[in-house]
This record gives sequence, C-alpha cells and structure tokens, in this order.
Amino acid sequence: MTSEAEMEVEEGYISPPPTLPSTRCSVQAGSMRRGSDVLSTSRGTVRERGRNRSWLLSSIITVNVLILGIALVSGSVFNNVKINTINLQIFLIVLLILTTAWMLYYTIYTSREDHAVLYKDSHAGPVWLRGGLVLFGLCSLIMDVFKIANYVGYLHCDSAVKIVFPVLQAVFILVQTYFLWLHAKDCVQLQRNITRCGLMLTLSTNLMLWMAAVTEESLHQTVVPPEDGNSTHSYDIRASGGYSSCNCSHSACAVLEKAYYYLYPFNIEYSLFASAMAYVMWKNVGRLVDEHNHHSLHFRLKDVLVGPAVGLVMLVAGLGTFVIYEVDVEKGDLGKRDTVLMIHYVMNTVAVTLMSVSTVAGCAIYRLDQRDHVSGKNPTRSLDVGLLIGASIGQFTICYFTIVAVVATGAEGHLNALNLAVSLLTVIQLCLQNIFIIEGLHREPFHEDMHQASVFTNPYVLQAQAHRDIHNLPGTFMETKMSPALTVHSMHVAPSGSPLPQRHRLTWKRRALKEICAFLLLCNILLWIMPAFGARPQFDNTIGAEFYEFTMWAAVVNIGLPFGIFYRMHSVASLFEVFLTS
Amino acid sequence: MTSEAEMEVEEGYISPPPTLPSTRCSVQAGSMRRGSDVLSTSRGTVRERGRNRSWLLSSIITVNVLILGIALVSGSVFNNVKINTINLQIFLIVLLILTTAWMLYYTIYTSREDHAVLYKDSHAGPVWLRGGLVLFGLCSLIMDVFKIANYVGYLHCDSAVKIVFPVLQAVFILVQTYFLWLHAKDCVQLQRNITRCGLMLTLSTNLMLWMAAVTEESLHQTVVPPEDGNSTHSYDIRASGGYSSCNCSHSACAVLEKAYYYLYPFNIEYSLFASAMAYVMWKNVGRLVDEHNHHSLHFRLKDVLVGPAVGLVMLVAGLGTFVIYEVDVEKGDLGKRDTVLMIHYVMNTVAVTLMSVSTVAGCAIYRLDQRDHVSGKNPTRSLDVGLLIGASIGQFTICYFTIVAVVATGAEGHLNALNLAVSLLTVIQLCLQNIFIIEGLHREPFHEDMHQASVFTNPYVLQAQAHRDIHNLPGTFMETKMSPALTVHSMHVAPSGSPLPQRHRLTWKRRALKEICAFLLLCNILLWIMPAFGARPQFDNTIGAEFYEFTMWAAVVNIGLPFGIFYRMHSVASLFEVFLTS
Repeated sequence: MTSEAEMEVEEGYISPPPTLPSTRCSVQAGSMRRGSDVLSTSRGTVRERGRNRSWLLSSIITVNVLILGIALVSGSVFNNVKINTINLQIFLIVLLILTTAWMLYYTIYTSREDHAVLYKDSHAGPVWLRGGLVLFGLCSLIMDVFKIANYVGYLHCDSAVKIVFPVLQAVFILVQTYFLWLHAKDCVQLQRNITRCGLMLTLSTNLMLWMAAVTEESLHQTVVPPEDGNSTHSYDIRASGGYSSCNCSHSACAVLEKAYYYLYPFNIEYSLFASAMAYVMWKNVGRLVDEHNHHSLHFRLKDVLVGPAVGLVMLVAGLGTFVIYEVDVEKGDLGKRDTVLMIHYVMNTVAVTLMSVSTVAGCAIYRLDQRDHVSGKNPTRSLDVGLLIGASIGQFTICYFTIVAVVATGAEGHLNALNLAVSLLTVIQLCLQNIFIIEGLHREPFHEDMHQASVFTNPYVLQAQAHRDIHNLPGTFMETKMSPALTVHSMHVAPSGSPLPQRHRLTWKRRALKEICAFLLLCNILLWIMPAFGARPQFDNTIGAEFYEFTMWAAVVNIGLPFGIFYRMHSVASLFEVFLTS
Repeated sequence: MTSEAEMEVEEGYISPPPTLPSTRCSVQAGSMRRGSDVLSTSRGTVRERGRNRSWLLSSIITVNVLILGIALVSGSVFNNVKINTINLQIFLIVLLILTTAWMLYYTIYTSREDHAVLYKDSHAGPVWLRGGLVLFGLCSLIMDVFKIANYVGYLHCDSAVKIVFPVLQAVFILVQTYFLWLHAKDCVQLQRNITRCGLMLTLSTNLMLWMAAVTEESLHQTVVPPEDGNSTHSYDIRASGGYSSCNCSHSACAVLEKAYYYLYPFNIEYSLFASAMAYVMWKNVGRLVDEHNHHSLHFRLKDVLVGPAVGLVMLVAGLGTFVIYEVDVEKGDLGKRDTVLMIHYVMNTVAVTLMSVSTVAGCAIYRLDQRDHVSGKNPTRSLDVGLLIGASIGQFTICYFTIVAVVATGAEGHLNALNLAVSLLTVIQLCLQNIFIIEGLHREPFHEDMHQASVFTNPYVLQAQAHRDIHNLPGTFMETKMSPALTVHSMHVAPSGSPLPQRHRLTWKRRALKEICAFLLLCNILLWIMPAFGARPQFDNTIGAEFYEFTMWAAVVNIGLPFGIFYRMHSVASLFEVFLTS
C-alpha cells in the first residue's frame, strides 16, 4: 500500500491546478509575471513536499491504529480474564467518534466552501458499490438495533459499554453511508493533509470493525459446533465477555441473539465496501482529473441471446438447489445432509466447468480480435485490478486448504471426490476469469466513429486491416468491415446524426464476447448469492474441521469467504464493463 | 503488489528501446519509413499487451504457489498424522529444482547472448544487500551441512527426503547467491515473459522457504519453553516429523541439532534478502533506465565529530550490556535474569530516547533548510520506502503486543514499567525515524555547482534567497551563502577544476544533519546486532508468553523479529544515503 502511494507521489500530478480558487496565487501570478517560472516551480515543490508528508503521516497513523487493534483483538481472543470485549469496544468507540466527527466536519466544510471539490473521478464509487453499501448498511443498522434491544436486557448486571457501542456504530453507519454516497468521487484539493489523515482514519476504523466482527463470528462458530444449532445461549457467554451469572430481563433475548448473528456477514461486507471506497478517495486526494472523453456506452441486450439464456437457466437451477440445500441442512438430518451436499457440489462443478470453458473461448477470441490497449493513467482501473486479484486470494485460500485436506485424508467416497473436483475447478476458473476480466478491462472500447476517424487519418491502416479481415473473416462479414472507408465522409458530415444501419450488426467476435460476458456475469451472481445468503458447505462437510483444528478452519473460512463474496460482486461489475466495451 | 505492478504497466515505459539489437525492427523501420507512426504505435501496443499478460501470469503463479504452500504448512502444523514435514519438503524440493533450473538457464542464456542485458538499474542490489546475502548464505550453507550430517545418523530408520532437502537447498543457495550477485541490477529486455515468471517463481520459493523456516523455528520454541534449555532432544520429535523410536547412529547428533537451530535466524534473513532482490529484478524487467547523472558523493567523516563519537559510545556500551545479558541468561539463574533484563531495558530506553530526540532535531532542521524534492520516477527508491515501512511493521507488532500485555496485567514492578517504557519509546522512535529517513531520501542532494547553475539562469531566485538568508542566518554565515553569485563565473570556467575553498565548510544545518545521521546509523547497528545475535528479551521476560498463549506469542515474535532485524539493516543503509546527500 505504502509503496504504491509512494509511486503515486513520484509520478507527478500536474503541479498547479489551473482553476484553483486561491486569490493569493492569482495575485502573485498577476503582479510578478516575469518570475512566474520560479513561482510555479517552487509552488509545485512545496505542494509535492506537503503531499509526501501527509501520505506518510496518514500511513503511519493507519499502521499504528491497526497494529494496536490487532494486539487488542488477539489479547481478547487468547485471554479471557485480563482483556475482554469491553476493552476492545472502548477502543472501537474512540475510533468511531473520531471518524464520525471528521466525516461530519468534511461534509459541512465542503458544503460551505463554493469550490471545495473541483474534480470528480468518474470511475470511483460506481453505482453497484454505492448500492451495495446502502444495502449492507441497512442490514448492519438492523443488526445494531437487535444488539441494543438484546443488551438492554442485560443492563442490570453488565457493562453499559455494550449498549453504547452498537448505538455509536449505528450513528457511524448512517453518517458514513451518507458521506460515501455523496463524496466517493471527490478529488479533494483543499485541506489535503487533514483529508488524507481523515480518510486513513476512516479506513482504519472500517478495517478494525471488520476484524472485530470476523473474530466474533469465528468465536461464535468455534464454541457452537454447527451440528447442534439449537443451544444458542452457550456461546454468548464467551463471545460477549462472560456474563454467565447474568440473566436477560426480557424474553426476546434468545431470538434477538440468534437474529443478529445471521446479520453479521452483511456487516462484514459493509466494512469491506467502505474500506475500498475510503482507499480510493485517499488515492484521489490532490488528483487533477483530466476530462476523459466519456463515450456513452449503450447497454443493449437484444444483440445477445445464448449467453443470457444459458446463464439464466444456470441461475434458476442454482437457486433451486440452494433453497433445497438450505432447507435440508437446517433440519440437521445427517443422511439428507450428505445428499444435499452432493447436489450442491454437482451444481457448482457444472457451473465452474461451463464458466471455465467459456472463459477459455473468450481468451481465444481476444487473440483473434487484437485490439489496442487503453493507454494512460487510471488509478481506479489499477485499483479494480488489484482488488480483483486481492479478493480472489480469499477464495483461493479456501480451495487450496480443502484440496490439501481431501488429498491428505485419501479422498474416499463420492462426496470427497466431488469436493476435490469443485475445489480444483474453482481454482482453474478463478485464474482464467482473472485473466479474462483484466485483459478485457485493458482493451480499447469498440467505437465505430473513433475507429473510422483513425482510419481516415492514416490510409495505411485501412489497407492493412482490410487485408487482414479478408483473410480472417467469413465472406459474409467482409462488406461490413470494408464499409467504414465509404462512410467516413457521411460520418463527419453528421457526427451526432442517427446511427447508420450497419452499426447495429455486430461482428461474430464482438457478439461472442458479449455472450460470454453475459453468461459469466449471471454465473457469478449465482456464486455470489449462495455464500452471501448462508450456504456454508465448508462447515457442513466436516472434513475441513476434522483435518485442521476447528479454530484454524473457522478462521480460514470466516476470513476467506467475505473476500470470496466481494470477489464475485466485483467480478459481476467488471464483467458488465467488459460487456459494454467489447 | 499486483496493483502496483499494474500501475507500472500503465504509466508507460518508453515504447521501443532506442538501441535494442533487433534486426527485424530496424529492417521494418528502414523500409517503411512512411508508415513508421503506425508501426511504432502497434509495436508499442503489442509490447504493452505482452507485458500486461506476463505480469498477470507471473502474479497468478505466485499466488497459487504461496497459497498451496500456506495450506501445506498449516496442515503440517495442525495435523500430526496426515501431513508431516516430509510432504512439505517434497513440495519445497520441487520448487527448489524448478527455480535452480531457471536460474541456471538465465545465467547461461545471458552469458551467451551478446546484448542480453543492455540496461542496469544502478539503484538496485546495493552492496550492503549483496554483502548481507553472501554472509547469510554462508551461514545457511553451514546450517545445511549440519542438517545433512545430523540426518545421516537417522537414515536407517527415517525418510531419505530429509537428507535430499538440505542437499538441494545448499545447491539452491549457491546458485541463487551467484545469480543474484551477478544479475541483481539487470533490466531484462529479452525473453521478458519467461524472465518475469522465473523471477516470480524465485520469489515464491524464497517466501516458502522463509515460511517453512519460521514455522519450524516457532514449533521448536513452542515445545521447549526457554526456561529449560538443556533438554534438546524432546522438540525434535515434533519438529522433524515424529521419529520417537528412531535413534541417531552417531554421537554428534545432539550437538548438531543444537548448532543448526542457532543458524535458523540467518537462513530466515537470507530468504528475506533474496525475496527483496528478486522482487526488484521483477519490477525492473522491461525497464529502460535513462542514464541518471550520477553525482559521485564523497564520504568524508572529518566534517562530523559529535554524532559518531556519541554513537560509538552507545555502541560500545550496548555491546557490553549485550554480552553480560547473553552470558547471564545462558546460565539460567532466575534472580540474575531479572537484573540483566533490567540492564538491557535501561540500555534500550536510553538508546531509543536519544535517537528520538535527535530525529526530532533532524526533522526541525529539514524545516529550516527547505530543499527541493527529487522529482522523476525511481522504482528502487519507492521500493526502499515501501520496504522501510513494511519491515517496521514487524517491530511495531511486537511493541504493541507487549504494551497491551503489560498494561492489561497492571504493569507492577520496575521490570514491567521498563518494558512498557521501552516499547512505547520504540514505537515513537520508529515513527520518527521513518519520517526522517523518507524525507531525507526525497530531498535533492546538496551540490554547490548545481545550485549555482540554477542561480545563474534565474537572477530572481538569487535575490529572493539572499534576502531570506539574511533574515534567517546568523551574521557569520552570510558571506558563505552570498558567495555563490560571485563564484558562478569561475565555476563555469573550470567545471572539473579543484574545489573552491568554501566548498569544504559545511553550513551548520548540513553539518548537524550529518551528525544526526551518523549517530542514528550507529545506534541502528546496535539495535540490529542485539536481536540478530540472539537477544530474546521477549521470551526471557515471561509476561508475553503468559498473557497470550505461548504458541501465539512465539508466532508473533518469530515472525516480527526477522522483519525487525531487516528493518534495522535497511535503516543503516538508508541513513548512510541520507548522510551522503545531506
């Protein structure tokens, strides 16, 4: 992270913002025109020095907060007496108050200043991310309400901190969701030092909340083995800091506790989303976005048919097996559990196999349809790629741990064989999909008029391309590809005019890519919904928990799965972009 | 890591290397001069696409190797029966063979091709890193010899893999040290795809060896609590995969086992060094280094006096207490242990306090002596900064864990109070030192003639600066700072001539900075030697092991300390650079 920030610093943003509303600067520039070189250079240097310091300071703050947090979390896990959840929650409360205060300050400050935010990064905070944030934020709010209601029942014999924490967390979620919804695209120019530190504080707080939630979820899973899910009271003694002699004063406690543990995964996802958005905002501080020529890409489904159709079939079938799985696992019948696990594995095997095959086909089409790569700097795309690979590590980890466990125990029986097959195929699918998406994101979007404009300026390309097309394409498509040369003139006469007839007909390569994207997109939605809504074959199949110790396995799954879910969501968004540009 | 690589890709290296000895390219360029724009663009794009693919592929290989490795290591730690050290070692053997083969191939290939390496990154693989690599490599070789001799004694009843692994590791270390010594500075231009993958394989192998060594060291520490260091035989039953009924056939086994466990830390450091160098090489693949104007900076100690003197006193005193500490801890007397621990803590407190104070002074001088920041891209400096902050996380972690443990247990007695003080002060010292070094590395080096040249071109700066100097400086220094204007002409007449008299006299600011750097450098050497040669106050003081469980604490210390040692070495090198440039 830090070294990346360092690169950002060095690869020099344009020094003085052309329209920065600083009266001092403009007076200087006006009165000392002769010395303008000197001034702009020294101003640039001061600016760079300040940027340098503030990213360093904000990184150091983050490192300190996070490591202290890790120490507290570890202490509270491994030591029941000296450090308990309350100490950790006090630390979190301090972070929550500081972060909320800064976010309110920022919101008020930018709303008062006229020119506080001059630039917006159009790639940052896409609608799926903000939408997901709001959705998960709502679930987290409900979780907090349940928590408050639950701990009110213990107030007579337990610490008040346990009520204060969810109350503050709810306030924090409200403020943060509002803040990120409004400001996720901001490229902050004023008060950069404070903003950098504030954003890193926001990032740290979200990561700490994430860490605390994951740990609590793990402890919860550890104390209650998933077999007997009805003894809901036993684990809370551990997870909430030990009030074994303290009884709830109202009757809804048991239900509330059960309910809010179901909402934990949403809260975990919320923290991850908010962290990603805070990080992008941090990267964008001080950035001067050059106005990209934003091509409006139209979403038209009627060009594609096979991909969405097969994808929908997969989605419906998958959701069907998922419902069966959830219902039968809930019953706790061991014989039935094996059957539904097998159905679940078969479904997954089919899905990832089809996805792998279509991805390979997609990569082959990329080879045929050589297109220029998008040049120029784009931090959001870099982050997209980084997040894609980073988030896939969670899924990779679970798969490899499963493979090692199954292979080492001998992999006897259909269930283990299927488990192994799914894990292996998922690893392959993840590798292929990463390659497909990253390659797709880097290709130049298809634009007839851009294409033609460049053809117009350099006739050699046209000849070469036409020549190549004749060799590569079936005869029927020849005239479509040859026509640009003939339509160049009419295009330039009416640049905003009605689309020409041949625009609507896609080449078979573009169409195939779109089909593949649509299919992969729907399959990723399926693979996202299943874990997000509670499928945990990793625990229902006991091989992992038996092979590794349960603590270890719960840690691996509980840390890996949220990243896996995030990966699938992110893939859906990225595939949608590839669909539009291809 | 990946997203950084992505940035590297996007921020466009210069497309076609001007002197690449490719006959094909020059023929094309010659015969088709008219279409040269098109050609160079498309060639650049192909190049970029290739780079894109190969970094993606190499990243994916690394991710897969590492995660499979983590799964195997976890399996071997948490599961005694199914997966043992032998399985893990077979995996490592495969990696070792592949990596060694690639390194041999690369060495032979580049020695045969005339123009295989055209560019060298002068910043990469500095002499301290390569020297350290050789030193630690030697220790690792000795460790392997001891291991082989030891396991020969068990050959009649144990797996032969245990001998094959150290043999191959020794070969690997020899080949890799030779490879990195020769090629650490290479900016590879030919066979970039293979080279990228090979380097990432090297990185993965080193990280896996590091992980395996750290785990074995942790297990070793876990089974034998440090109190009774004389029962050397018990732990090996666990650490080497369980041959409880297998007895050594020669008498040297006990001694050998004890000896090679002392050499583990060096092997761990070796892997870290090699990983860092492989990573830099990977970043440099395909890079075209523009010839930096390399100013020869002279190392002159006679300008500074106070800093080195105080530093040397600290170093000698520290080494004295360290020897006392080691001797007394070895005896195992509990009463004496507390005394020497206290001496050790006092020594550390004094050292880090003085270091913090001088660092603050240094940062204040930076503020007074505003100097331009080095502009332009420099991946090695970015990596330096990243490594500095990254490696400091190890030390941070140990400190914060100690702080939490001491505060939570109440911190009674002098020993705990001192422990707390050392940890808090070390955290502060690390933050300050990071700021000081990073700020120092980014400042433009001091050069009289450069300074004057820029003054010569723009008279306004001179006036402004002279004006500022009059206000800021004590009267005696005025003429020194005013003189450049008068000497500009003579400088330009004799650019390579003998240094002018006033060059030798440093301003008080530069001198103070040099004193501070020298002092910090020597103190960092002290803080490096102590843990590197076996001081483990974290285990000798039992508070950490009692507060966290022993496994947890051993993991934190054994992962954190190697990074801490690396951090101190790296700081020494960076401070030396700051010393030269300030």
